[in-house]
Amino acid sequence: MTLQLNETHDVNLRSWVTSANQPDTDFPIQNLPFAVFRRAGSHQNFRIGVAIGDQILDLAAAHAVHAFAGFTELQGGHFTAAVNAPNLNGLMQSGAPVWSALRLALSRVLREGSPLQGSLHACLSPQNTAEFALPAHIGDYTDFYTSIHHATAVGKLFRPDNPLLPNYKWVPIGYHGRASSIAVSGQHFRRPVGQTKPPTVDEPVFGPAKRMDYELEIGIFIGPGNALGDRISMDQAESHVFGLCLLNDWSARDVQAWEYQPLGPFLAKNFASTISPWVVTLEALAPYRTGWQRDSTDPQPMAYLEASSLRSSGAFDIELEVLLQTSKMRETGTAAQRLSLSNFRHSYWTVSQLVTHHTVNGCNLNAGDLLGSGTQSGPAPEEAGSLLELTEGGKKPLQLANGEQRIFMEDGDTIIMRGWAKKDGAARIGFGEVSGTLLPAVI
Amino acid sequence: MTLQLNETHDVNLRSWVTSANQPDTDFPIQNLPFAVFRRAGSHQNFRIGVAIGDQILDLAAAHAVHAFAGFTELQGGHFTAAVNAPNLNGLMQSGAPVWSALRLALSRVLREGSPLQGSLHACLSPQNTAEFALPAHIGDYTDFYTSIHHATAVGKLFRPDNPLLPNYKWVPIGYHGRASSIAVSGQHFRRPVGQTKPPTVDEPVFGPAKRMDYELEIGIFIGPGNALGDRISMDQAESHVFGLCLLNDWSARDVQAWEYQPLGPFLAKNFASTISPWVVTLEALAPYRTGWQRDSTDPQPMAYLEASSLRSSGAFDIELEVLLQTSKMRETGTAAQRLSLSNFRHSYWTVSQLVTHHTVNGCNLNAGDLLGSGTQSGPAPEEAGSLLELTEGGKKPLQLANGEQRIFMEDGDTIIMRGWAKKDGAARIGFGEVSGTLLPAVI
Repeated sequence: MTLQLNETHDVNLRSWVTSANQPDTDFPIQNLPFAVFRRAGSHQNFRIGVAIGDQILDLAAAHAVHAFAGFTELQGGHFTAAVNAPNLNGLMQSGAPVWSALRLALSRVLREGSPLQGSLHACLSPQNTAEFALPAHIGDYTDFYTSIHHATAVGKLFRPDNPLLPNYKWVPIGYHGRASSIAVSGQHFRRPVGQTKPPTVDEPVFGPAKRMDYELEIGIFIGPGNALGDRISMDQAESHVFGLCLLNDWSARDVQAWEYQPLGPFLAKNFASTISPWVVTLEALAPYRTGWQRDSTDPQPMAYLEASSLRSSGAFDIELEVLLQTSKMRETGTAAQRLSLSNFRHSYWTVSQLVTHHTVNGCNLNAGDLLGSGTQSGPAPEEAGSLLELTEGGKKPLQLANGEQRIFMEDGDTIIMRGWAKKDGAARIGFGEVSGTLLPAVI
Repeated sequence: MTLQLNETHDVNLRSWVTSANQPDTDFPIQNLPFAVFRRAGSHQNFRIGVAIGDQILDLAAAHAVHAFAGFTELQGGHFTAAVNAPNLNGLMQSGAPVWSALRLALSRVLREGSPLQGSLHACLSPQNTAEFALPAHIGDYTDFYTSIHHATAVGKLFRPDNPLLPNYKWVPIGYHGRASSIAVSGQHFRRPVGQTKPPTVDEPVFGPAKRMDYELEIGIFIGPGNALGDRISMDQAESHVFGLCLLNDWSARDVQAWEYQPLGPFLAKNFASTISPWVVTLEALAPYRTGWQRDSTDPQPMAYLEASSLRSSGAFDIELEVLLQTSKMRETGTAAQRLSLSNFRHSYWTVSQLVTHHTVNGCNLNAGDLLGSGTQSGPAPEEAGSLLELTEGGKKPLQLANGEQRIFMEDGDTIIMRGWAKKDGAARIGFGEVSGTLLPAVI
């Protein structure tokens, strides 16, 4: 499935929700991402919403005023149940024809001149008075390792002579993560405690982690799954992907270094992971497809990881930014400072390759499962997606504009990640942001 | 929480379900494990059942005839909802006082002379006409690595000079596994395909895994969880454990060897895992508590992994057996052949230590989560819990009694695992069995 551009991508479309027509909005009418929300501080049930400008359209309320009449894919009990659910799992399960019809219907009723403007106006609420929940019940979470720049930089710190392991260019390396500790943007979490082994002593010590880090990732929400034992081919892979979000895979590097051999990261990662509330569909990102390249000196993908459209349009051109706001910046009213800017197009493996590889052995995916791309570091040092890389393993402090320094995170630090796709001749497609704050450890 | 013996453990108790009084039954009245079942081939909803001899007591039906009247812990809407659910999550969530009251109530009404025998008789159905579902919705699955004998034997194959890594004796090594592909005993699954790299060639190849293996494990079902950020202390750990089952963690060793660095096993493990239908409570196992030892030459556990009762009664004495039935054995009516016999008491870390370590960083557990103990190999070579160990990495074929040989599993092989606790002066507590069958690959 390679989505073609259609009327919903027209750069000239304008919405009667006028904030959606601002050139710098993340959420023009060409985007239409999904989230789960309610009025902040209320005890209402969470509901599915669609971003339009600085507003949220309540999807169930829109359905109730017949906004989707005339679309056969958007009728019946399954669809009604899916849009009235407190999470996106039902809509994720419903499949690409429903997603595409819903996008077209939303695009039409939110356009300037829509006859439904009057009735839909009452289905809007401002984003700045909303609180969000996780977009889906996440059954299983898998994290990949798709930036060769990240893998090389991190590998150098652990194995200077042999930074990239022999399997890296053949296998989309991944591992299972913890689903229960994933939360939506705004998460505040305690600095984890545990075992670490400082290089200067013979025995491990117990206490708060000292090398706290973030990881800049794209999250991939699975749509319809596959039965146990079935495989998903490259040509079918994208029909199993509902959309993308931002993901911060918090990491305690000192815990990780001591625990990770031979079975991989565990307590270094499972105390918290944070995702953006908004899930941007692959269809919204169609204008930002880009070619995926593999150096001729590198191994080419095995046949099961190849597809005819891979080289022309297998990747996505999405800018990814990390910002830091320290306690001191908050106290002094200083804006968050950018730490790095990277791009998802640098990924060594594509979204389709991750889905296909994950299922090649018959492993079953389910609607709402989350895949992480792994830290999206670009080729240049300033495109690194973690402090571990930016500070060269803690050896080179970051000098901040307000005079502070950072090697790893300090208590009170908030990390903000943003993502967007932008180019001439297409509407800007934004991801909003994911933020999270490190609180002091409780001993 | 260290459970004391009480009237439910009395070796002299007899049930009016006479099959429960056979000396070799897995399910005497002193056991009372839980499962989720329905009549085989029916389209009924799955229900919670309790094993008694060769029968299953329908828990909701027993509740409906007031079998639990007189126990204040077993009244009210929460309890009624929990026993009427199609999985054990509600009962797991309800906590140790409810589990203990329910065990006492079941013990009393199933005893010889119970006035409820007449009405409860109609709540029984034979195990041999039942089909089972997973006992719980498993939110997250974590697999540990608690046999030092397994870790050393496997480590020798990969790193002859350095079999046991420096962290092993300090950290209960664990990693996250795949929840979606866990199924109940009777699972048939396809031989997985994927990338492997034979040592004789320079590049990886694609095809069916050749080194298919099982892993003999104990599964640990979590009861009430902990909030994200909270820790569970050693003293509290067992109040968060509902019970134990048998777990076969199928492994594709050639896939594992090629993919596992640096982030751990992934496709080598996530195509299938199989558990026994019956979950045996810790209270049923109280007579089989045994001391947990740590050699004086080994590092003693860090303070957070210590408890006053650890050395006297931290471990469980549970025999664990692996049997193989090949296609040829089935065709010729030959019984399955034992491959090994081990014991859970050899575990280097206890159930409480796994729960406490898992949450020391604030990671949240939820009712129904499953922890795997890791392969339970004992100190002697014939106690090895995997073919990898029994055949010394595939170098020493196993000679079977019917003339067949095995290095790794062949298509059509069924692996059966059994577990039981037995000693003079206490009733035998059995786990039943977990079986699974390898089907040919689909290319």
